[in-house]
Amino acid sequence: MAEEFDVLVLGGGSAGYAAALRSVQHGFSVALVEKAKLGGTCLHTGCIPTKAYLHAAELADEAKESEKYGVNVEFKGIDMAKVKEYKDGIVAGKYKGLSGLLKMRKVQVIEGEGKLVSQNEVEVAGTTYRAKNIVLATGSTSKTFGLPLSKRIITSTEALELDYTPKSAIVLGGGVIGSEFASAWNSYGVDVTIIEGLPNLVPNEDPSIIKQLERSFKKRGIKSNLGTFFKDVEETSDGVKVTLEDGKTFEAEICLVAVGRGPVTEGLGFEEQGITLDRGFVITDERLHTGVGNIYAVGDIVPGLQLAHRGYQQGIFVAEEIAGNNPVIVEDINIPKVTFTEPEIMSVGYTQPKAEEKFGKDQIEVTEYNLAGNGKSSILGTGGIIKLVGVKGGPIVGVHGIGSRIGEQIGEAQLIVNWEAYPEDVATLVHAHPTQNEALGEAAMALFGHPLHG
Amino acid sequence: MAEEFDVLVLGGGSAGYAAALRSVQHGFSVALVEKAKLGGTCLHTGCIPTKAYLHAAELADEAKESEKYGVNVEFKGIDMAKVKEYKDGIVAGKYKGLSGLLKMRKVQVIEGEGKLVSQNEVEVAGTTYRAKNIVLATGSTSKTFGLPLSKRIITSTEALELDYTPKSAIVLGGGVIGSEFASAWNSYGVDVTIIEGLPNLVPNEDPSIIKQLERSFKKRGIKSNLGTFFKDVEETSDGVKVTLEDGKTFEAEICLVAVGRGPVTEGLGFEEQGITLDRGFVITDERLHTGVGNIYAVGDIVPGLQLAHRGYQQGIFVAEEIAGNNPVIVEDINIPKVTFTEPEIMSVGYTQPKAEEKFGKDQIEVTEYNLAGNGKSSILGTGGIIKLVGVKGGPIVGVHGIGSRIGEQIGEAQLIVNWEAYPEDVATLVHAHPTQNEALGEAAMALFGHPLHG
Repeated sequence: MAEEFDVLVLGGGSAGYAAALRSVQHGFSVALVEKAKLGGTCLHTGCIPTKAYLHAAELADEAKESEKYGVNVEFKGIDMAKVKEYKDGIVAGKYKGLSGLLKMRKVQVIEGEGKLVSQNEVEVAGTTYRAKNIVLATGSTSKTFGLPLSKRIITSTEALELDYTPKSAIVLGGGVIGSEFASAWNSYGVDVTIIEGLPNLVPNEDPSIIKQLERSFKKRGIKSNLGTFFKDVEETSDGVKVTLEDGKTFEAEICLVAVGRGPVTEGLGFEEQGITLDRGFVITDERLHTGVGNIYAVGDIVPGLQLAHRGYQQGIFVAEEIAGNNPVIVEDINIPKVTFTEPEIMSVGYTQPKAEEKFGKDQIEVTEYNLAGNGKSSILGTGGIIKLVGVKGGPIVGVHGIGSRIGEQIGEAQLIVNWEAYPEDVATLVHAHPTQNEALGEAAMALFGHPLHG
Repeated sequence: MAEEFDVLVLGGGSAGYAAALRSVQHGFSVALVEKAKLGGTCLHTGCIPTKAYLHAAELADEAKESEKYGVNVEFKGIDMAKVKEYKDGIVAGKYKGLSGLLKMRKVQVIEGEGKLVSQNEVEVAGTTYRAKNIVLATGSTSKTFGLPLSKRIITSTEALELDYTPKSAIVLGGGVIGSEFASAWNSYGVDVTIIEGLPNLVPNEDPSIIKQLERSFKKRGIKSNLGTFFKDVEETSDGVKVTLEDGKTFEAEICLVAVGRGPVTEGLGFEEQGITLDRGFVITDERLHTGVGNIYAVGDIVPGLQLAHRGYQQGIFVAEEIAGNNPVIVEDINIPKVTFTEPEIMSVGYTQPKAEEKFGKDQIEVTEYNLAGNGKSSILGTGGIIKLVGVKGGPIVGVHGIGSRIGEQIGEAQLIVNWEAYPEDVATLVHAHPTQNEALGEAAMALFGHPLHG
């Protein structure tokens, strides 16, 4: 007879391993099926390695600027092989930690590609495993729209493995991934051009934030061509050529294809078991149940924000749900987001346009606090803003920020939005001086009608 | 007849100018008396310039470490004149902003030393000004215990004006100010020894945090002699000599006297008007009223935490009080604190020993989350911890952290403590990946009984 588990998780990325770990905490027997490496996209080819790259980029920027601060430094260039070594070291350390943790917690890790073969069975390399509950967490992969990937036309996965810095690069796509690579490469000295079909970079952010990022990127020398989609990408004798729908062409040494990530659900038996897919995404109810047997779905295969911490939270949620603990749903709108470009972006809750749409234009008030008034930001040499979106006489429903290192303000920001704080709940509290965090306090005072500075 | 104001504020530091600005927002006529420069200690010789110094120190540290990250940099040394220029530029910019703001808001700034001459009158350079309400905000100054200040025996004020880096320095006092200077100077290449009479550095912090700081300082090569008070400091032919009570001596090129800050209240007519002083501090009720006429006191002259943002908050509080708005008291225990050493420290609420004293040892539970498990901290190359102190089955009453850049976590930390959040209120929310902020979420999960990692 097939081995049976209380919970079987298909996919060992952030969503999957969180479901597995929380499930064992509830005393369940748990299997985790992974075809590649535990940790998934986030750990191996996503959040972690890209942020290592972006930290090296920050160090390069700081080195170039240090003399202004009285720190005499000569910047001699980037050693990509060494950056990769540093990045690989971080990933290896976290991978070892995660593997050890899963082993210690007695999650049975099954190596191989799992296929759903009944409502209670998954087959891996010819062996069938039974489970009372199945959690689908098969993740996502870079979309390529059929472009001819090569040594010069690459996705983020390959970009992280480059052992040289190209002279020039075209980044197809000005979303989070494209903008982060553009930012890092610019710091590394690469001549970067972003091609984005929509009229703006990071189009999901608040318009005030977008404006600031576009201005900063321009100032940094990152070129952009916005509002026209690409038609073709081809390799030339010494580089790549991108042709847009309007006939305009761009050439560079390499091209990063960063046009979004699609779900990995094909050929895994999901539809055969009656699970509804929509353009490859798994459709669930709001409690992440697929409507089939005891099968749940979590992470990037569930339509919405493709973020590791959303998947992680969903993994925990489903484990709690299976344990009968009736966990609270965290809506996508209340999930914090950080973009690790220079300058960094953080946001949670409604943008101004979305809040106006939801609550009515005359019900919304906003405030923008300029970081020029923030001591620590001046010390760091960064500009930027904190923008609060509030319902008149009601709670703050959106917190947005841009500026060097501003990403860490997401902690207070998400508590404000998730706890439905009123401006006065925040404005009356003391924010520590001199921190960037003060800017949140000042913004809340301004929204409350009492800006003290500025 | 003397000119009369609704509110007269004596002292233009953080506490005083906050009282003045908020008072004009309530429609009051306001005078602000300042004998030196608007902005006070914080802006000119405290928070702002020291943090500029510490940022230069951070840049130096990063330059020295950059090669590990694949960023080829040669560190050539510190140019103190340039650091000072950078620091002076930041201060000048903020000073201009503050002066302009006070002018725009029509606060009447009176230059000179003000003396209280009746319950409603202040005299400045021979002119008497009347006021319905008076706010005392005369601030603090470095204590020196009668030590013979000189070119080599200096306080933090003079230390910020040095245009060279000494080869070696003795720092008398291992509190916040002493530790911050020791940290910056070590980064600048100065051979630093801290002399602290108490058994520990930063003695007001939680013991776990203290242990980490002491270990980090030792690792960085900052020497300390703890637990024995100094007896004497004298200048020698080529430096300074510090003799401890046990006879031990230390020599260095300069000595920074950082043994605390005392209130500036002498000779200002306070006692003559019936105001109670205790070792120079102004005694008030919990609503910051002195018990005399309509005279209030705010900032460093009020016993308790000597922090700019506490003064700032007290200034706003008193303005609201005068306006009859019955503001909420923010107790010192709930005021956030950041120490900008490398590694940084942040804390708000009760330390473990203080919580055990207040709530009973068996009523307290704590958790320490090691930053080794935090992706962003690994990327930054920092260790450290987040420590939560909770009442069993009750709220989190203390949040403490140490690590590079960890100071900015104070935002979420202070909301948690001030809003009396339970571990599950924080643990069930999503923290953005990969940020240092995640560590707070993980710590809350651990305190809630469900650590997912680690």
